Amino acid sequence: MSRQTQIGLMSHEELVSEHETQAASYAKLQTEKLTLDLTRGKPAPEQLDLSARLLTLPGDGDYRDGSGTDCRNYGGQHGLPELRAIFGELLGIPVANLIAGNNASLEIMHDVLVFAMLYGTPDSERRWASEPVVKFLCPSPGYDRHFAITESLGVEMIPVPIGPDGPDTALIAELVAADPAIKGLWAVPNYSNPSGVVFSEEVARALVSMPAAAPDFRLFWDNAYAVHPLTDTAAPVLDVLGLAAAAGNPNRPLVFASTSKITFAGAGVSFFGAATANLDWYLTHAGKKSIGPDKINQLRHLRFFGDADGVRAHMQKHRAILEPKFALVLRILEDRLGASKVASWTEPKGGYFISLDVLEGTAARVIALAKDAGIALTAAGSAFPYKKDPEDRNIRIAPSFPGLPELEQAMEGLATCVLLAATEKHLDN
Amino acid sequence: MSRQTQIGLMSHEELVSEHETQAASYAKLQTEKLTLDLTRGKPAPEQLDLSARLLTLPGDGDYRDGSGTDCRNYGGQHGLPELRAIFGELLGIPVANLIAGNNASLEIMHDVLVFAMLYGTPDSERRWASEPVVKFLCPSPGYDRHFAITESLGVEMIPVPIGPDGPDTALIAELVAADPAIKGLWAVPNYSNPSGVVFSEEVARALVSMPAAAPDFRLFWDNAYAVHPLTDTAAPVLDVLGLAAAAGNPNRPLVFASTSKITFAGAGVSFFGAATANLDWYLTHAGKKSIGPDKINQLRHLRFFGDADGVRAHMQKHRAILEPKFALVLRILEDRLGASKVASWTEPKGGYFISLDVLEGTAARVIALAKDAGIALTAAGSAFPYKKDPEDRNIRIAPSFPGLPELEQAMEGLATCVLLAATEKHLDN
Repeated sequence: MSRQTQIGLMSHEELVSEHETQAASYAKLQTEKLTLDLTRGKPAPEQLDLSARLLTLPGDGDYRDGSGTDCRNYGGQHGLPELRAIFGELLGIPVANLIAGNNASLEIMHDVLVFAMLYGTPDSERRWASEPVVKFLCPSPGYDRHFAITESLGVEMIPVPIGPDGPDTALIAELVAADPAIKGLWAVPNYSNPSGVVFSEEVARALVSMPAAAPDFRLFWDNAYAVHPLTDTAAPVLDVLGLAAAAGNPNRPLVFASTSKITFAGAGVSFFGAATANLDWYLTHAGKKSIGPDKINQLRHLRFFGDADGVRAHMQKHRAILEPKFALVLRILEDRLGASKVASWTEPKGGYFISLDVLEGTAARVIALAKDAGIALTAAGSAFPYKKDPEDRNIRIAPSFPGLPELEQAMEGLATCVLLAATEKHLDN
Repeated sequence: MSRQTQIGLMSHEELVSEHETQAASYAKLQTEKLTLDLTRGKPAPEQLDLSARLLTLPGDGDYRDGSGTDCRNYGGQHGLPELRAIFGELLGIPVANLIAGNNASLEIMHDVLVFAMLYGTPDSERRWASEPVVKFLCPSPGYDRHFAITESLGVEMIPVPIGPDGPDTALIAELVAADPAIKGLWAVPNYSNPSGVVFSEEVARALVSMPAAAPDFRLFWDNAYAVHPLTDTAAPVLDVLGLAAAAGNPNRPLVFASTSKITFAGAGVSFFGAATANLDWYLTHAGKKSIGPDKINQLRHLRFFGDADGVRAHMQKHRAILEPKFALVLRILEDRLGASKVASWTEPKGGYFISLDVLEGTAARVIALAKDAGIALTAAGSAFPYKKDPEDRNIRIAPSFPGLPELEQAMEGLATCVLLAATEKHLDN
């Protein structure tokens, strides 16, 4: 066939024809009155069903943990030792350095930042609120809720590129060594949101060992997808606390995790791992706002999992549900957009997202087109600090929530929008 | 009998004799090697047993509320409408103005203050952290955890006296009208901690209507014991939001409550009631730290209570356990200290505490003596800002946790310590 499929190489005539084709497809799409949602990394109901036993746990008369603590009453700020042991094993963190909290690790991240603002960290010369400016490095695309926290606190966010092995450590090292205002870096080391990138050990070593102008420079190490592989070989969970201690920067990493994408998204348990100085500091301030976490919910999770292998086995059931959805998205992207060369996308080995890059300058248009056709996508630029995608090309796809038929409809529709926007753009040029 | 029992009127000879008697009793007490705890308002295990059904709720396959929401997943920042309706009825707050959170209302109070510090309230001219000084009025004796929050945030705390109908509103009105730095007042309107005082409607009206120099003056209205009567007639729950709106100050009250002393102390549900402007403001900032509260735990509570009468009936079971403990404490105080006239105490009609005032200048000594005899009491001065009891006389007694035999031992021992310290003091003078 002489017909050109690579949009960027099309003649004007071919472009006009392609645009007509896609416009017709889009018009048809609009008649379907879809209401589909690819916005958030929400587990599907079938995934939540995997944890159905939690609805009747810990069980009749069961309210004491292994140490005899009455989990119903106040107290126990560190959380249940047995549950911390399970996740300590999974996260590579000694039990003494891992605490368990309520249903949102985001809350702990937020509070750590707020406490740093109001009181300074154990290594701070003054509270961050008294600094002329506080800056955070933001590997991008990244997690919008991370960026929302730093934005709301007035922290200046500096995007840094993220490659296949993690963020650009040469650039980060240069920035961090030069600027004492840089106090932190957001990181999702395993199956990053949304890029799916797994940080290599070299990247982790560089991040924990690089000289920092700020003595209180912190890695906000959000290991949200530590046990969320989509293949047989799970990415290793790096002992970032150990690496940091060995490098002489024991207080640098702050590790966060949760069961939000393991059990019930809204009713899970969060975890916070750090060196003792950081944990003591956090608990001193957190102790002002709570007499302890919901230990019954922690006991419920302990009974549900049993041990770390219980978590691993449970995650295989999630994988069985998620893998076909990711495969479907990737198949449609390849089928519909592969030849056109107007888009590229990640093929993640785990986590919750596929990151789609469309033709430069068309992401916002694609998202608007999709919205008008009843397909909700995360707002344009969401994966970037201040919601500003410098190239207007990134779209985060969250395949977990919809069923396969809805996901197929949504992706076919999205592909049409991508192609339509691309032909529009080329015709404009 | 010619023997004098009123210690303050004793002759030196009688005092020496009384001191010997009490010192001997104390020496005997020390040989008993007690380990008793009257420190915190913790529910007893039998009280927690009343909510045993929560250990298997919401129940197999039950995860949707009345509106069809899947409570397992993310979202629903306001909390479950049906549960908010139950507590809205109990607290006299429209559902739209009441939200439900996680396991600690203290956390919401803390966060409201933190958000005011970092961002200012909807009525603030600037964020509180940018004010030269922020002051709070602290009816005293009051709740130590309230004072710990304001102290940690550097808020200057001004104690104000609390009388039988609530805090001294004439003094408060004078202070609040004159000083724009006064941004808040801590209040426990029903069965105050530790005084047991119930604010009268007149006091509430005065507090919500008094002119304030600060446009963002707030009443932190912690109705922790709204449904915790110890008599047949529960104190009314005042419609403080309605009164404030009628007085033209709708945003002034911030109402807090929880089920911590209704179901499981560490695994309950918290509530926050306020005018829409305040709620919207709170949720905007709280939305940065969490994708919503633990709705499954809220559903669990909804199933457990059924309706507001379910809560009221449940509270009668608590009363049946608590009433004999309070009666025992009051009987021993009267038997052992009544005639001596070195102490006075509250006779609360609800709540969790008895406030004991001992001879001026002896509270710290009493607490130290009790500690050496194995009876733990809240640290001296705890019920006052900065832990400074100006007269060194207040001791908070928390009768809920120990069983009756332990409570009797502890109170008999405490009475001995009170008398010993009083005779010491009089002999010193």
